[in-house]
Amino acid sequence: MTRPNELVLLRHGESTWNLENRFSGWTDVPLTVSGEEEATSAGLLMAEEGLAFDVVHTSLLRRAINTANLALDRMDLHWLPVSRSWRLNERHYGGLQGLNKKETAAMHGAEQVFQWRRSYAVPPPALESDDPRHPRSDRRYRDVPSGELPASECLADVVDRAVPYWKAGIMPDLSAGRRVLVVAHGNSIRALLKYLKHIGDDEITRLNIPTGIPLVVELDDAFEYAGDRYLGDPAVAAAAAAAVAAQAG
Amino acid sequence: MTRPNELVLLRHGESTWNLENRFSGWTDVPLTVSGEEEATSAGLLMAEEGLAFDVVHTSLLRRAINTANLALDRMDLHWLPVSRSWRLNERHYGGLQGLNKKETAAMHGAEQVFQWRRSYAVPPPALESDDPRHPRSDRRYRDVPSGELPASECLADVVDRAVPYWKAGIMPDLSAGRRVLVVAHGNSIRALLKYLKHIGDDEITRLNIPTGIPLVVELDDAFEYAGDRYLGDPAVAAAAAAAVAAQAG
Repeated sequence: MTRPNELVLLRHGESTWNLENRFSGWTDVPLTVSGEEEATSAGLLMAEEGLAFDVVHTSLLRRAINTANLALDRMDLHWLPVSRSWRLNERHYGGLQGLNKKETAAMHGAEQVFQWRRSYAVPPPALESDDPRHPRSDRRYRDVPSGELPASECLADVVDRAVPYWKAGIMPDLSAGRRVLVVAHGNSIRALLKYLKHIGDDEITRLNIPTGIPLVVELDDAFEYAGDRYLGDPAVAAAAAAAVAAQAG
Repeated sequence: MTRPNELVLLRHGESTWNLENRFSGWTDVPLTVSGEEEATSAGLLMAEEGLAFDVVHTSLLRRAINTANLALDRMDLHWLPVSRSWRLNERHYGGLQGLNKKETAAMHGAEQVFQWRRSYAVPPPALESDDPRHPRSDRRYRDVPSGELPASECLADVVDRAVPYWKAGIMPDLSAGRRVLVVAHGNSIRALLKYLKHIGDDEITRLNIPTGIPLVVELDDAFEYAGDRYLGDPAVAAAAAAAVAAQAG
């Protein structure tokens, strides 16, 4: 059983654009069949571990929402209360969204793309405000003050908008003794872990979050980080993280 | 577009026990493949009608939750805020849950079964409190005061526990101008319609709610019932309601 103060972070399974090697960001691409299987397997892993939750938090993107739905259905926890927030979304990739990663490297140079992808503080080119990809034209973000809606984000920006949700959205659940599942994205999970584990700006860019493998985070009585572990075979989690790193290279 | 004060009620698609002609009640049976298709079709119907929502309400049962997930995914509204309540659950069928309807008629007599199924105020035999089917042994109901958890319900009981949710759970959304989708069950939808349309005790037992066909309910400025219509081909909705009536006969 999870003890109170235990928390699980889960990155969504493979999406169609992971497969096509395109920059997704806030583009609302679906899971592949393989991504759906990852989600169900994650649910099975958590069930076998005897984990249970009292509430689930997701981003506003389909690949995280459907991963949560499939994993929770497998755990017989489909009925959990749900909280969703744009603050758990993937990093907004600005003008790169939709582009193939190799083509982008050919266009802008590998060094530039590497910097966009791997530096902590350099955002990709921003979307124009009249670009149809800009989140202001998407009804799901209509309640977000327009000054807070990103047209492009570096990882530092994701930290800046994800941590307030940790404090105002997730902590109240943990404080009330609720066991929390967060289903989100590579960079929003990085942002939470950077905050919780006090990871440095450079180091966080080298931390790779495997898809579909639940990360159990232990918190102490003051809700400070006290340890974490991936469920299942450690070699599988390590290989999955290495695959993410290679894809991002 | 839905105007504010418009509301859609949707009964879940076919479940495995609909197909096996067994009493489901609070038993958490899944949708059949055909039921999943009904859910997706309902989403398509609503999208084609230009309907949109700001919030979804479901029961705590998988067949309603997954119907909502599939319909909303089809509408690109998977990201909606979600509220769930046991008060939208199907009628609790007590000791009949799990039994085949024909076998039950052979055992108790067709007249008795007809009365359990179709009278407004006669509940089926109650579950013993130590029966594993009793909701007190199900974690999802742990926050419901034990005096309110049913061991069997007649339709009058469903009205008694669903209407408070209309007032305290759904009305606040409508009052705030939010467009509401409710995905629930034959008897919890009956209960809401009885309240909204001031339908008599006898008449309500003859009202059949087709599965998977969205019912658009118009409310006036005082949130009183002002009309309703099933989406899609009226002949299809009528045939589906007749099929429900025949199955229940």
